[in-house]
Amino acid sequence: MKFRLGDNQYGKSETHVVRIIKQGTAHDIKDLNVSIALAGDFAETHLTGDNSKVVPTDTQKNTVFAFAKDGIGEIEEFGIRLARHFVGDFASVYRARVDIEEFAWDRLHNHAFVRTGSEKRVATVTGTDDGTWVVAGVTDLVVLKSTGSEFHGYIKDRYTTLPETNDRIMATSLSARWRYSDSAGLDWGRSFVEARSALLETFARKHSLSLQQTLYAMGEAVLRARPEIAEVRLSMPNKHHFVVDLSPFGMTNPNEVFYAADRPYGLIEGTVIRDDAPPPGLAW
Amino acid sequence: MKFRLGDNQYGKSETHVVRIIKQGTAHDIKDLNVSIALAGDFAETHLTGDNSKVVPTDTQKNTVFAFAKDGIGEIEEFGIRLARHFVGDFASVYRARVDIEEFAWDRLHNHAFVRTGSEKRVATVTGTDDGTWVVAGVTDLVVLKSTGSEFHGYIKDRYTTLPETNDRIMATSLSARWRYSDSAGLDWGRSFVEARSALLETFARKHSLSLQQTLYAMGEAVLRARPEIAEVRLSMPNKHHFVVDLSPFGMTNPNEVFYAADRPYGLIEGTVIRDDAPPPGLAW
Amino acid sequence: MKFRLGDNQYGKSETHVVRIIKQGTAHDIKDLNVSIALAGDFAETHLTGDNSKVVPTDTQKNTVFAFAKDGIGEIEEFGIRLARHFVGDFASVYRARVDIEEFAWDRLHNHAFVRTGSEKRVATVTGTDDGTWVVAGVTDLVVLKSTGSEFHGYIKDRYTTLPETNDRIMATSLSARWRYSDSAGLDWGRSFVEARSALLETFARKHSLSLQQTLYAMGEAVLRARPEIAEVRLSMPNKHHFVVDLSPFGMTNPNEVFYAADRPYGLIEGTVIRDDAPPPGLAW
Amino acid sequence: MKFRLGDNQYGKSETHVVRIIKQGTAHDIKDLNVSIALAGDFAETHLTGDNSKVVPTDTQKNTVFAFAKDGIGEIEEFGIRLARHFVGDFASVYRARVDIEEFAWDRLHNHAFVRTGSEKRVATVTGTDDGTWVVAGVTDLVVLKSTGSEFHGYIKDRYTTLPETNDRIMATSLSARWRYSDSAGLDWGRSFVEARSALLETFARKHSLSLQQTLYAMGEAVLRARPEIAEVRLSMPNKHHFVVDLSPFGMTNPNEVFYAADRPYGLIEGTVIRDDAPPPGLAW
Repeated sequence: MKFRLGDNQYGKSETHVVRIIKQGTAHDIKDLNVSIALAGDFAETHLTGDNSKVVPTDTQKNTVFAFAKDGIGEIEEFGIRLARHFVGDFASVYRARVDIEEFAWDRLHNHAFVRTGSEKRVATVTGTDDGTWVVAGVTDLVVLKSTGSEFHGYIKDRYTTLPETNDRIMATSLSARWRYSDSAGLDWGRSFVEARSALLETFARKHSLSLQQTLYAMGEAVLRARPEIAEVRLSMPNKHHFVVDLSPFGMTNPNEVFYAADRPYGLIEGTVIRDDAPPPGLAW
Repeated sequence: MKFRLGDNQYGKSETHVVRIIKQGTAHDIKDLNVSIALAGDFAETHLTGDNSKVVPTDTQKNTVFAFAKDGIGEIEEFGIRLARHFVGDFASVYRARVDIEEFAWDRLHNHAFVRTGSEKRVATVTGTDDGTWVVAGVTDLVVLKSTGSEFHGYIKDRYTTLPETNDRIMATSLSARWRYSDSAGLDWGRSFVEARSALLETFARKHSLSLQQTLYAMGEAVLRARPEIAEVRLSMPNKHHFVVDLSPFGMTNPNEVFYAADRPYGLIEGTVIRDDAPPPGLAW
Repeated sequence: MKFRLGDNQYGKSETHVVRIIKQGTAHDIKDLNVSIALAGDFAETHLTGDNSKVVPTDTQKNTVFAFAKDGIGEIEEFGIRLARHFVGDFASVYRARVDIEEFAWDRLHNHAFVRTGSEKRVATVTGTDDGTWVVAGVTDLVVLKSTGSEFHGYIKDRYTTLPETNDRIMATSLSARWRYSDSAGLDWGRSFVEARSALLETFARKHSLSLQQTLYAMGEAVLRARPEIAEVRLSMPNKHHFVVDLSPFGMTNPNEVFYAADRPYGLIEGTVIRDDAPPPGLAW
Repeated sequence: MKFRLGDNQYGKSETHVVRIIKQGTAHDIKDLNVSIALAGDFAETHLTGDNSKVVPTDTQKNTVFAFAKDGIGEIEEFGIRLARHFVGDFASVYRARVDIEEFAWDRLHNHAFVRTGSEKRVATVTGTDDGTWVVAGVTDLVVLKSTGSEFHGYIKDRYTTLPETNDRIMATSLSARWRYSDSAGLDWGRSFVEARSALLETFARKHSLSLQQTLYAMGEAVLRARPEIAEVRLSMPNKHHFVVDLSPFGMTNPNEVFYAADRPYGLIEGTVIRDDAPPPGLAW
């Protein structure tokens, strides 16, 4: 019997760093959750426990804090700096992946803030000696439309009981992530804001015959709006809102009273890609 | 050996109801999580399993949906209607308590919405034959100030290692609940908005020597702003942000880079009450 | 307008301490989550920010660790030591409440362990100059019986749609907490084990006409089994398991296939108390 | 500008089904959370909203319940039946992936049960016209060893502050998943039990110089124990337990009192594969 080490990576997950930027009496805040994963020449630690090529995860955490001191900027930039550092400084590290979640705060006052939403801006940066790949996106963005959504014409088999509908609530907790084809000179902040706007605008205005159609339209809208984006991946749980049957109580219910269910839920995942997109490399 | 039944209550928890209000092409949304607890003449079901005085929790759920059809209004009003219904319609129910959480949505478009924040508006209504008590509030309101907070002058004993500080981050996930003394003709929505504003304004602007001082000032500000409020109870976890020691890396850290810790956390709870507050009755 | 400080307390929550006890090659493990809340002469910190009577929550955390070094023993004992320390050593502390959760581990090997269950053993100790009160219990103990449970004979009103049943699944995530009347020389570990056994045995064997009846019987069984326990408080969410209607698929379903629902859920709370129970004092 | 649909799939997630098996007075329970994802000829629903090739997720849920009526057996078998059904019955479905989590219950009595652990047994079955791939495993299996773990000899750079250690706590919440090479006539239950035993036994007994070394040894032990397993993938968060510095209190702490931290945490992921493993196909 012979065995071998296959794919492996390791790193420090969820270093929660808050950086305060002070300019006079007004402060700014950057609030990030940073996870790092390194792959490379790590067979020895697995096979013999020889750690001579291992960068401790504790050091990775320290590095996040030290780099934060020099300024964070956009999370894509911070991820690029970190990824390049680990690949560049350590011969044993072939690939560094940096995942960042950013929590948004609204200003209350000069140096006081209130958290906005459960929504998180995210970025994943992957670096090797051969290049750097940047994926950005948004997660936990909860949206609902109370009409403008239909679902009918589907396959019926012996297990089908779902009635067709011309009017339903459509709601999801959107996760969208997009890959940049060319990031030279890119304004990461503006790209993010406009991609997010395209997603929300399309969700709101596009009449829907299926969640899949809405998903595709949302991805397409991002690609139309931002030429620097090559590909969009969307994950959209169908947060079911069932019309409550009020007829036992002598009431009609023309899509006014809904029961919001937790589980089970539909889960629709899809990708919209530019025909001339460059290959993804190690982006995902 | 003799035993007896002591305090008891039962009900349906977390009925998640969404009510769409349609006026022309514009829709409005109310998104509530409703929990009901009934107390009364329920010894028999405990002692013998005779359920002849029991209103099933399933019926309570149905009642929430049916009442939602008639319109929800402010959550305090919806809670009052539900509480009075259970006390009024069922001889065996002596006390009904209705807890409501409301999730906020911002409008994207005529009938499309995006969830705002993890913050929830809450109300607790307690009804008996003798009266109705209303508590309103807000939970999961996460705020942070990056300066304007000190902590020193405390007791030192053999287990004290905390250094005193004249400048720290203060952050909390605020839960504030307030009791109304007189609700005749009250504008629940306006009371809520202005109480919330008083909380945020005070958190932001009041220089802090302890989280307790900030808590008291926030409660007092609510009482100053809203004469119809008799008492405010606040719960403020101290979401610790520790200054990272960057000196091993040859860096100073004048309160710029923080580690946001999860556990353990301080928990500060307190009440601010009007001197002439009426007795609380069954409010809490 | 005059306002005043009402009830208040503060402390360090969720200090997660693991204590390894080493005796030769075999180790033992105690894994606790400790929360402390102090009440007393704390008006000044609220009103002026004068902290001269405040024991910092950081010191409370340190105290937990230092006391753990001296040995933990049963969690009730550890709670008593901590509560008495804070009340005894600090004139400004009138009441100390210590909440402890204990996580169970099974031994794999001399010094290796595997976590058992989501169930937690809990204790709440409250100390003042006038006495010490001990509450013990168990939470998150998930149990299910697949038959031996009925529910019928309840009130029907215009909102009732629930069918009566002579056979259903009954499932709950039990939280039970009991108050000791006399703890002199008590074997806390044995009391806990036998109270827990009485709960499980009764849930399993008692035929049920309502969850309330089961709750009462479980509490009564604890009081019968353990004379040192004065009162039991139980909280039992009704984790609904609905029989799936398989008739559209040409199948019968004699209580074989169930859908386990998350929300809403019934919540049954009740107390069983010994007729000659001493007054609870500050136990709860 | 031209765009196209890339990878996509959809299905019903988290259908929580409980199946009671009745044989005389003794019952058995199977408690599963089933998630289904279908890929295939679904361009039309994305591009035009034409759902004529779509199997509704609601139907998928119904199918889970109907199939449960016929008996579940081992979760790998149930997954195979479901996957083959969707691929076999619907021309538009090219690939069906079925993810199952199973919750364990211990018997209290003939028909009463208590949930054991947060640990879950899992299986992922992927079916196409060309074959069926089975991955099995365990998640949320929390283990700790209080000695027998070292970590030293790692790279030091300017950001390193971690001291080397010859004795530390090692703890993780294990997720292990393994791919079967040949499942003809396989006893899924026995394979699972023995693979799990090999994991636990190795964690407990293997002296550790790094978490990576332990991970590799655990995977190797599974392959040694079970020839039908081709490959094991492990994910092991390093649940850090830090030795508390008790020296300010005049105490030593020879690895007796630890602070169990939540975040950040190390995350070690790796694969151990048989040299002659067949290609993975669509297993993962």
